[in-house]
Amino acid sequence: MNWRAQVQDKLPEAIAMLQRYCRQPSISAQGVGIAETVAMVREMIENLGGECRVLDDCGGNPVVYASFEPGPNGNPNRTLLFYNHYDVQPPEPVEEWTVPPFGAEIVDGKLYARGAADNKGELVARLNAIALLKENGGLPCRVKFLIEGEEEIGSPALPRYLEKYADLFRADACIWEFGGKNQYEQVELVAGIKGMCYLQFWCYGADVDVHSSMGAVLDNAAWRLVHALATLKSADNRILVEGFYDDVVPPTEALKRIADELPVEDLKSLYGLRRPLITGDANPNYALLFEPTMTICGIESGYTGEGSKTVLPKRAQAKVDCRLVPNQDPDDILRKVRRHLDKHGFTDVEVTQINGERAYRSNLDHPFVQMVVDTAKAAYETEVVLHPNSAGTGPMYPFGEFLGMDLPIVSTGCGWWNSRAHAPDESIRVADFERGILHMVLLMERFGADV
Amino acid sequence: MNWRAQVQDKLPEAIAMLQRYCRQPSISAQGVGIAETVAMVREMIENLGGECRVLDDCGGNPVVYASFEPGPNGNPNRTLLFYNHYDVQPPEPVEEWTVPPFGAEIVDGKLYARGAADNKGELVARLNAIALLKENGGLPCRVKFLIEGEEEIGSPALPRYLEKYADLFRADACIWEFGGKNQYEQVELVAGIKGMCYLQFWCYGADVDVHSSMGAVLDNAAWRLVHALATLKSADNRILVEGFYDDVVPPTEALKRIADELPVEDLKSLYGLRRPLITGDANPNYALLFEPTMTICGIESGYTGEGSKTVLPKRAQAKVDCRLVPNQDPDDILRKVRRHLDKHGFTDVEVTQINGERAYRSNLDHPFVQMVVDTAKAAYETEVVLHPNSAGTGPMYPFGEFLGMDLPIVSTGCGWWNSRAHAPDESIRVADFERGILHMVLLMERFGADV
Repeated sequence: MNWRAQVQDKLPEAIAMLQRYCRQPSISAQGVGIAETVAMVREMIENLGGECRVLDDCGGNPVVYASFEPGPNGNPNRTLLFYNHYDVQPPEPVEEWTVPPFGAEIVDGKLYARGAADNKGELVARLNAIALLKENGGLPCRVKFLIEGEEEIGSPALPRYLEKYADLFRADACIWEFGGKNQYEQVELVAGIKGMCYLQFWCYGADVDVHSSMGAVLDNAAWRLVHALATLKSADNRILVEGFYDDVVPPTEALKRIADELPVEDLKSLYGLRRPLITGDANPNYALLFEPTMTICGIESGYTGEGSKTVLPKRAQAKVDCRLVPNQDPDDILRKVRRHLDKHGFTDVEVTQINGERAYRSNLDHPFVQMVVDTAKAAYETEVVLHPNSAGTGPMYPFGEFLGMDLPIVSTGCGWWNSRAHAPDESIRVADFERGILHMVLLMERFGADV
Repeated sequence: MNWRAQVQDKLPEAIAMLQRYCRQPSISAQGVGIAETVAMVREMIENLGGECRVLDDCGGNPVVYASFEPGPNGNPNRTLLFYNHYDVQPPEPVEEWTVPPFGAEIVDGKLYARGAADNKGELVARLNAIALLKENGGLPCRVKFLIEGEEEIGSPALPRYLEKYADLFRADACIWEFGGKNQYEQVELVAGIKGMCYLQFWCYGADVDVHSSMGAVLDNAAWRLVHALATLKSADNRILVEGFYDDVVPPTEALKRIADELPVEDLKSLYGLRRPLITGDANPNYALLFEPTMTICGIESGYTGEGSKTVLPKRAQAKVDCRLVPNQDPDDILRKVRRHLDKHGFTDVEVTQINGERAYRSNLDHPFVQMVVDTAKAAYETEVVLHPNSAGTGPMYPFGEFLGMDLPIVSTGCGWWNSRAHAPDESIRVADFERGILHMVLLMERFGADV
């Protein structure tokens, strides 16, 4: 079968489907268009002959379950699960878009829309791969989808759905939601994610803001918080919370070799950095892949407008994001931070956890991982790099927790290095979308044949 | 002469004058009503037979000079200078006022207006004292006024006017602009102010905000600033900048005795403090009067809204207010902070000075100081407490610098402990205003007689 020609032949239909889907806003943070989008997703699935169930009994936006039976020559004992989300980030700041965020216009070979890269392009590519396989002899394996609607707001309800419907979603392998090409036009695949412990700090000093002349005698919430934070991490970026690194498992030699082989991006020019990397001369991939972080995402107290205001602020807050590696537990990290603050005399500094998520890393020796790599090479005809895990986070751990910790999960998608997910002018390149469809066709074919 | 009866007799006229003056907005921060207010001040002075000059050749809002000749029995060799300002704070937040901020309504014996306590009540009290003395035999001494229009925005141009017009403003003693009764209904006088070095810190890490997953390898402007600030002051509130305390002259035994005798306010309940005073068991008046401070007035970086945002901020800023004691130089403090940052490896943290002002403290043994105390006791018929200096700041040092460092300056006014200067529902009590007029009458009488 010349799948490449088949994909090319059907591309206009696939693009039309993607445009229609992208033109339907589905903004979870603002509660916009959720019901309409769920209806559209159901329609797309049922039009392809899939079974669809809209699950909504565990809170939050509905989770869409879909199932496609194997064809007459397909393997009924092999089930591939796709994880996608139908919600998108808010389009704001809208004025910074050069095209309408829900217009799905194609300009210079790129389709622009909020959600095009994150994550509507991926779902439509996967559905079109299924359509092609069905039109050409039937699906080579059983296919399931979990399409949730709260990924952009932290997937708070997802673990409950996975726990309750574990039997429904059971699979032999899982394709995760995101991916694309890096600056070197290599296809990047990831086989895991980091965890997260997002902490909110508050310190209250007084009922009211006080004239700063009283700083001679009054303690100051901003100073308290600054001193408390400064004890958490050294100026040379070593996390000082007692026991923070206890559960970190050093990477195996095999993992280190993978890290050594991954490309090193020029972050200095990409972000306009003023300071050297905190990893010094070491390969930055080591830290990105294998080391936990502690990042101040925000801090705020008192007056920060123009000029001067002589105020002693009544309160101060900070938001701190810890990225975790496999085996670290966000609840345990919270307890350790609390204990650290108490031990250092900062019992007055409050800390709570806003988001907690454990890391997940697939067994890289699982044949499914290599299968995704090989089919990507065949589909994209370019270099493919496999990251043991992303430096970012996602709700991958509950898939392992409820569907089996040996579930191999690999993430791939049709984004590119300037896709601008979460930012104005989000886009995918039509050529990548086309190869993305082909990749999924080849993968399902190999996956069904594999015994 | 029964001055008390005279003041009472003329009180309705004085109140009408104050209401008219308060109804004229004069908001320096917003450039509102400056010319109209200057015209009104000139008119009030000239109506009393004073000579008025509007000085506007050194930048900023005009400085009003006024001069009143001594009467036939007055002492032409004794000159008293009054320092006032005609500008007021903005009335915002207007919705928190229970009366119109420029209505000057009298409710329950209190006159409510933006500027009533800071500083229009004082000017009108002083002018009415002059009117009374002139109607009853003439002024006992020569009287001058310096009435500026930028006190609420830091008096940036005032030193230039004082330098250029030093001969015009030359005097034997000076009455400063503010004062009133404390919670114990004692009249509080102050004979000096603290200085200020208001610092703005900036730290830039990147051209753009970056996804926080990059915290594994990227340095973080917020962490840099937190660590830099934490080196400036210990967690137990000792300022750690090398040489910061070098120029601090320990208080004399006489000054300490004064501090011991001053009332101690219950700050804990006044402000709803969550922590003990940083001065521990020591008399807090020592620190308020004699010790420099370093106060974070504001700090800001990254995302500080609801919930979580996983961002590594491109920049961070802080505003830090150092209150200085006599002999400390704000420019020198800035240099020492810069040197400290460099020495501790924070060459990337920028620091600039937004406001700089030196402290000033009158010689408490000067007879004028005791004269102000004695006449206050006679006028108010209550306890009077003299603070060697305020814990706050004002442009007092340039008066000494250009008119003579031996110029005795004492501050007194007709505010009360709940005057809410700079806040909604600013007010003075009419009874205090009345006594304030009397105080100025008695003071000028004593001052002219004194040889």
